[in-house]
Amino acid sequence: MAKIIKGKPVADKITEELSKEIENIKAKGGQPKLATLRVGERGDDIAYERGATKRAEKIGIEVASVVLPGDITQEDFIEELQKLNKDASVNGILIFRPLPKQIDESMIKNIIAPEKDIDCFSPVNVGKMTEGDPTGFNPCTPSAVMEILDFYGVEIKGAEASVIGSSMVVGKPVAMLLLNRKATVRVAHSKTRDTAAVARQGEILVVGVGVPKMVKEDWVSEGAVVIDVGINVDDEGNMSGDVDFEKVQKKASMITPVPRGVGSVTTTVLAKHVLKAYKQQN
Amino acid sequence: MAKIIKGKPVADKITEELSKEIENIKAKGGQPKLATLRVGERGDDIAYERGATKRAEKIGIEVASVVLPGDITQEDFIEELQKLNKDASVNGILIFRPLPKQIDESMIKNIIAPEKDIDCFSPVNVGKMTEGDPTGFNPCTPSAVMEILDFYGVEIKGAEASVIGSSMVVGKPVAMLLLNRKATVRVAHSKTRDTAAVARQGEILVVGVGVPKMVKEDWVSEGAVVIDVGINVDDEGNMSGDVDFEKVQKKASMITPVPRGVGSVTTTVLAKHVLKAYKQQN
Repeated sequence: MAKIIKGKPVADKITEELSKEIENIKAKGGQPKLATLRVGERGDDIAYERGATKRAEKIGIEVASVVLPGDITQEDFIEELQKLNKDASVNGILIFRPLPKQIDESMIKNIIAPEKDIDCFSPVNVGKMTEGDPTGFNPCTPSAVMEILDFYGVEIKGAEASVIGSSMVVGKPVAMLLLNRKATVRVAHSKTRDTAAVARQGEILVVGVGVPKMVKEDWVSEGAVVIDVGINVDDEGNMSGDVDFEKVQKKASMITPVPRGVGSVTTTVLAKHVLKAYKQQN
Repeated sequence: MAKIIKGKPVADKITEELSKEIENIKAKGGQPKLATLRVGERGDDIAYERGATKRAEKIGIEVASVVLPGDITQEDFIEELQKLNKDASVNGILIFRPLPKQIDESMIKNIIAPEKDIDCFSPVNVGKMTEGDPTGFNPCTPSAVMEILDFYGVEIKGAEASVIGSSMVVGKPVAMLLLNRKATVRVAHSKTRDTAAVARQGEILVVGVGVPKMVKEDWVSEGAVVIDVGINVDDEGNMSGDVDFEKVQKKASMITPVPRGVGSVTTTVLAKHVLKAYKQQN
């Protein structure tokens, strides 16, 4: 039976480190600050906003929550974003996505100040991630995957890693982060002929596709470390990952649960990035 | 025996298309222009500059060659670059790399105007490449690999692709371009335990590591399409790729030679990017 590797101990450890650092900063009169920028009242956004705010404040980061009407024009949205870009007291900006359709994301991502773009919306940060440039901000969820692997002592260098899914939210960035740490990486997706075969090659298997319980036990090699980034909620409100947890846990050596897995670390990584932005700016 | 897939027919076809387009632009009074920016007198740079200039001029692109002394300060270099950034008559800028060590490349890549950065030096373009954003400029050599695959009718979507090497010059970008076209991609590198096994899984095998003749016939699966991006020159001036051509050609279905393979397409892709930049700017 696999060891169940939860997110909380990982988040707790990072939180402790960040709290200490921020205490020191405050003692010298500094104050890291996050601005969240939400358009409209989508439940997902509100839930993530609440989680991120709670976590950041717990660590000692100030949070300014900007909420704009769901029918705001692109022009007005850009004006609000520019204010945050220019506001020297704001170190990090989190824009909840997807934005409503009257706002062109491909334009906005080029407007957010890269040095405040703590969740890798700007192509500048996507580029730095691909290059492995440590001055950039990697996206929070893929970074949370890496934090979990490191916390639980999983050797990445030289490991056979399989990533299922190639979205910009999970698959592609996870693949790049694993590659930059010198794993041997393979990526499968909807056009892959034999996804199970790719999955089985992974000593580390990361799944982020948004299909509940897609990964069965015969997709997983004996002793694999399985990181489930999927969050699926059924009609009755039950949450499950992309991995068939009950079955796969009999075969894996370690497995993240859903909930209480990767998702529990994401907002802590966000806070970590705010602190990084603060230090770069001061 | 493999079909030897040379670069010239690929370059010729693109050249023909570009020439027509540029003829039309000129008829309307327009003039696409490339500026090359070289520091010092490195033989590699001069050879590439000559090739790029010849190709661009043949197609009807004007070329301004800026050559700076090898001991130029970073400040002066930046000033020259800024001039090209601001010069509205210049559509594309090619900086020869590596730059001498008194110039910090990680700073320069953030100064070159992304919209003129036709060889993907700026993290903005690296990011757009990773995202698959068609407004960016992908690096020329990896793009040449894709042009060759397309010209010779190699199906990329759903294909099993193996990339050997994970540099920012070849391996990583090739992997991203293949992934964005929905190949199932695996990447091996110096820390990979069994590189031959990864190579053998590729129906498309792209190699860019800089080790002469590293890829032997037992690394290649029967019927694979082999793209050799390596350019190695021995003490006697003989050029070879990273693939043991004589042996591998017996097993592959198609194989690029070195020389006269990928390298023959790179400067044509560069010219294509100058035209793209011109059109975006006008």
